[in-house]
Amino acid sequence: MSPRPENFLEIEPTALSLEAIQTPVPVIDLDVVERNVARLQAWCDRLGMANRPHIKTHKIAGLARYQIAMGAVGISVQKLGEAEVMAAHGIADLFLPYNIMGAAKLDRLAALMRATKIAVVADNVAMLEGLRQAAKRGGRPLGVFVECDTGSGRNGVQSPAEALGLARVVAATEGLELAGLMTYPKAGTRAAAAEFFRSAKALCEAAGLAVRAVTTGGSPDQGSDEGLDLATEYRAGTSVYYDRSLVARGAATPADCALTVHATIVSRPTATRAIMDAGSKSLTSDLLGLEGYGAVAGAPEAKIFRLDEEHGLIETDDERLKVGSRVRILPNHVCPVSNLFDRIYVARGERLIGAVAIDARGRVD
Amino acid sequence: MSPRPENFLEIEPTALSLEAIQTPVPVIDLDVVERNVARLQAWCDRLGMANRPHIKTHKIAGLARYQIAMGAVGISVQKLGEAEVMAAHGIADLFLPYNIMGAAKLDRLAALMRATKIAVVADNVAMLEGLRQAAKRGGRPLGVFVECDTGSGRNGVQSPAEALGLARVVAATEGLELAGLMTYPKAGTRAAAAEFFRSAKALCEAAGLAVRAVTTGGSPDQGSDEGLDLATEYRAGTSVYYDRSLVARGAATPADCALTVHATIVSRPTATRAIMDAGSKSLTSDLLGLEGYGAVAGAPEAKIFRLDEEHGLIETDDERLKVGSRVRILPNHVCPVSNLFDRIYVARGERLIGAVAIDARGRVD
Repeated sequence: MSPRPENFLEIEPTALSLEAIQTPVPVIDLDVVERNVARLQAWCDRLGMANRPHIKTHKIAGLARYQIAMGAVGISVQKLGEAEVMAAHGIADLFLPYNIMGAAKLDRLAALMRATKIAVVADNVAMLEGLRQAAKRGGRPLGVFVECDTGSGRNGVQSPAEALGLARVVAATEGLELAGLMTYPKAGTRAAAAEFFRSAKALCEAAGLAVRAVTTGGSPDQGSDEGLDLATEYRAGTSVYYDRSLVARGAATPADCALTVHATIVSRPTATRAIMDAGSKSLTSDLLGLEGYGAVAGAPEAKIFRLDEEHGLIETDDERLKVGSRVRILPNHVCPVSNLFDRIYVARGERLIGAVAIDARGRVD
Repeated sequence: MSPRPENFLEIEPTALSLEAIQTPVPVIDLDVVERNVARLQAWCDRLGMANRPHIKTHKIAGLARYQIAMGAVGISVQKLGEAEVMAAHGIADLFLPYNIMGAAKLDRLAALMRATKIAVVADNVAMLEGLRQAAKRGGRPLGVFVECDTGSGRNGVQSPAEALGLARVVAATEGLELAGLMTYPKAGTRAAAAEFFRSAKALCEAAGLAVRAVTTGGSPDQGSDEGLDLATEYRAGTSVYYDRSLVARGAATPADCALTVHATIVSRPTATRAIMDAGSKSLTSDLLGLEGYGAVAGAPEAKIFRLDEEHGLIETDDERLKVGSRVRILPNHVCPVSNLFDRIYVARGERLIGAVAIDARGRVD
């Protein structure tokens, strides 16, 4: 029998129904989570890539352990704080694709190295001395991926030649191991990333440097096989839940979306305006290029046209949205929503099961 | 001797300097907080208005107690969860200008009524039966303000005639007391609000209903005396810290801003791009009509042009923003930033004092 999320989550049971829980509050449907986790794993399996899901979306240790039970080789985390929480919950193989620097953080990295398997990235030479010292205190070699900017315009070396230059220094630094090449890709630019990697890998190998792994990721492009022939590992976060932005991009359907924020209509001051109790402190102000601050499930005409901190303003003439009625909001961007709540409810369809702690909420340090 | 914030805050001391604290993290300057609290109080005193600061900005019980020690009559809170946290910390006079409904929340309101002084609002008749039942269980009369939409386009009755209609029902409902009129004003529309209140008050009094209080607020208009002749109480939140949006509006100067998010430059991939470790999970995506996601203190040319969740992307050719250097970011909107962190550092100028819990963080329910 296949593992189920319930076997991994620490669920505080409830006798309440979904209609009775206090709002605003996020709810995830485990039926949908199961399908999403299985889909990512099957796709990685088919392409022969290791699956290393990014837990920044859910921040729940039990879901991470479930993803591993379903075939993931480990997890990706974005900050040391997330790594510490996940390691404390027994996750044994972490990838932290973030430049770690500063004495206190390097101490924390060394402590993590002593406790679990962890690899990091670098995109500049200046930070390598810190990593060297951390590796020394960590008591074993530290795997370092060279982060490449293959189009996202964020971190990363800017060219294959720069990648070679940094790879040389990593490989020559005591205590560091050149683990491979990494990108945080811009959606829709796989071909360019593949070309960058092909060139950087060839340069490294010509210089006698083995490129053992190439790690890429992203939920928007998940499912497309293009440009992945060099990729050995895939990191996807959002696809565990999906959200309105990924539906708008065509990467998912509304039925793939696992998380909604349940809210209550608290005011109906006019025939065309309804106010809900979820504002920017529940949904965030992320637009991601979309119009409106989320979608009201079952009311496609309703427009969430403004979020104050604790109020969501909806333009609608739908008479069902009356004072006291409930709505479910599909957020534009699900990842920062998880980061706003200490607990989340889990359900199967309309059956509410209980509440789960969002273990790494707020761990941005 | 005048009270000082240190006498009210539970500070966990630190021997670290500001340059040694781990980032990203918010820091408030108590020198500035003191000035801001005193300025609001003095202005309210001069106009003969009660000062009831809104704690949604800081969410720290000790700061609320300091504001009261400096002359505030009590505090405003936006959600029941905030009220519960503040009441648990001994704050004895709360105003919750939010429509409370649903059995579980009405139970919580009744419990608060038994523990402390609390008043609420209503903007519709449908919710009054719930308030009546809460008041019954609360064991004493519940003060209810009629919320008026005087221009903000959010909650509130739409006309003075509607205000009268609702006031009549409140006054006639067992257990409820008509406390007065309330608005969440749109900035720059005090004259219109004053006209609304004048008319609504006249209608109520002609009908034999006493309007004992008129409560308005807002940090953007704080300092302007216009249109406040009927106001008996003022609610301002953001002005305890101020932020970039209020500087842009001309309501404050950079020196009035008490909170900055300290961050570290973790990458400098090009001569014109620097990456800091504070992203939307530290600064939020709130733009409030501004360009860029915050201001880099001391580097006015630097533009924070994009926030990913854990990365802030800065366009700059300032060579001081090199890998490992520190920056301090003035957030566009300070209130939701407080809501992202469990703890905040307090300082006096460049002297770091310690850390304080953000007691009501995440209490959106």
